[in-house]
Amino acid sequence: MNITEYIRQWADRIEATMAKLLPGEDVEPPVIHRAMRYSSLGGGKRLRGILAVSACRAAGGREETALPLAAALEMIHAYSLVHDDLPCMDDDDMRRGKPANHKVFGEAMAVLAGDALLTRGFWVLGRLPELTGVAGETALAILREVSEAAGTSGLIGGQVLDVEAEGRAAILAVEHLEGIHRRKTGALFRASVLSGALLGGAPAEKLQPFAAYAEALGLLFQIVDDILDVVGDARAMGKGVGRDRRRDKATYPALLGLDGAQEMARREAERALEAARELGAQGDVLGALVEYVHRRDR
Amino acid sequence: MNITEYIRQWADRIEATMAKLLPGEDVEPPVIHRAMRYSSLGGGKRLRGILAVSACRAAGGREETALPLAAALEMIHAYSLVHDDLPCMDDDDMRRGKPANHKVFGEAMAVLAGDALLTRGFWVLGRLPELTGVAGETALAILREVSEAAGTSGLIGGQVLDVEAEGRAAILAVEHLEGIHRRKTGALFRASVLSGALLGGAPAEKLQPFAAYAEALGLLFQIVDDILDVVGDARAMGKGVGRDRRRDKATYPALLGLDGAQEMARREAERALEAARELGAQGDVLGALVEYVHRRDR
Repeated sequence: MNITEYIRQWADRIEATMAKLLPGEDVEPPVIHRAMRYSSLGGGKRLRGILAVSACRAAGGREETALPLAAALEMIHAYSLVHDDLPCMDDDDMRRGKPANHKVFGEAMAVLAGDALLTRGFWVLGRLPELTGVAGETALAILREVSEAAGTSGLIGGQVLDVEAEGRAAILAVEHLEGIHRRKTGALFRASVLSGALLGGAPAEKLQPFAAYAEALGLLFQIVDDILDVVGDARAMGKGVGRDRRRDKATYPALLGLDGAQEMARREAERALEAARELGAQGDVLGALVEYVHRRDR
Repeated sequence: MNITEYIRQWADRIEATMAKLLPGEDVEPPVIHRAMRYSSLGGGKRLRGILAVSACRAAGGREETALPLAAALEMIHAYSLVHDDLPCMDDDDMRRGKPANHKVFGEAMAVLAGDALLTRGFWVLGRLPELTGVAGETALAILREVSEAAGTSGLIGGQVLDVEAEGRAAILAVEHLEGIHRRKTGALFRASVLSGALLGGAPAEKLQPFAAYAEALGLLFQIVDDILDVVGDARAMGKGVGRDRRRDKATYPALLGLDGAQEMARREAERALEAARELGAQGDVLGALVEYVHRRDR
């Protein structure tokens, strides 16, 4: 198992599936489709999509089956980045190493492109039976997971808390920071893993190790992200290093020190690995992804 | 059939269903739920919801069954209004007779509240079987209708064309204006009617009169809206009269003259009535709604 090679291959297939499931740039009105494709294709680690694909595998399904689901998850992730970058939000000019959507297409089109990526994600979920042969009941269960994760108890709620917390780092406790990240990163990680497992045929009563895995991995991902922001190199991250600190945003290194944050990362990695081991041989990729997320370089 | 009374009663029930299906203002993080409820409850004609309810009736179903669907459609409609009003979009300060969402909660929260209303709409659609007892296949067919209507071939595409057309009224033809409105108003009208009919048990091959009805009614609604903007009274509309003309937005009266626009409205009303008659006795409310939309005062 060469995890880097695995990720590269499946990220390519997820990208190809997204390219097919998004409206083409020649479809009326072209500008919105250009804006949607600009911010969702040609970049990104595709981690949420990879999680869906490898959770499908871990549940005993074929990885190919999860490609449309993975594409939908990545569209929803891309929407959240486009809106987070808006001037009224985090006001970021760069994303994934290129100018943010609103810098290229303007604010109005960036709002609409985000709306459209979110809507297209749900559009794809509604078509999972025809795209993958999965039962309607399974498609609906996936819709319920993803819509819960994308809502105010997940993705949107996390961004709300994040916007509210800005400039108040000093008064934030680690528990509060975890509350933000459980929503902002964790919820969609969890939905990616659980919906991949559902698509792979996991019955509801077998989802517990998948949920435990996703929770630990989401937290690990965020801690490593914070650490990289302190010690990382600007170019490889595709955005300004030290950005969070300059804004006085709460981060794990700021709250726990660099050593404390690294220790916490080790603990979450161990929890995620343990959950992956519970899934047996088919959980191999999920296990390897823990190391990848933990050790990913700057 | 007193249509005004019918609308009042069912609008109240749709509102109550929305209030129940939206997260409460005490749920964390409260501010986003306050913002969501501010812009979706306590106002609006609930026309899309009423269309779903009365199309369900016309298809032979019980109106009550369509209440959660109606609530989901009204959440999606409310999201589109919140985002349309943003400073980077139409920059409207007032909506439904009160300050626009971003004037009360700020731009960041308005973007997020719109995102959350859209997401919650899909969340409700994923729960239609448990909320209404409808079959999973029907819930998925409804999701496909609504997600298509909300996307770039519908709601979002219409707003894109609208933003692009602003200030270019003179070079717009009636066909182009229809293209905008077929997307911006028509698509969600159509999805409301068709998904209500599906929920009421209409088989796919019986949807044609519903589609013809929705198309004519959507166009009628928009023409009347444009006419009201020319001749209407500011207070009753809840927004500034003459707003479209001041911005040099394309409208039917601007393109066809007031008489021409009124003639076109009569033609579309006749087409909608004809389609409603095809549905027999159960299509009575849909028929009465045509008169209501045509004659609605300012």
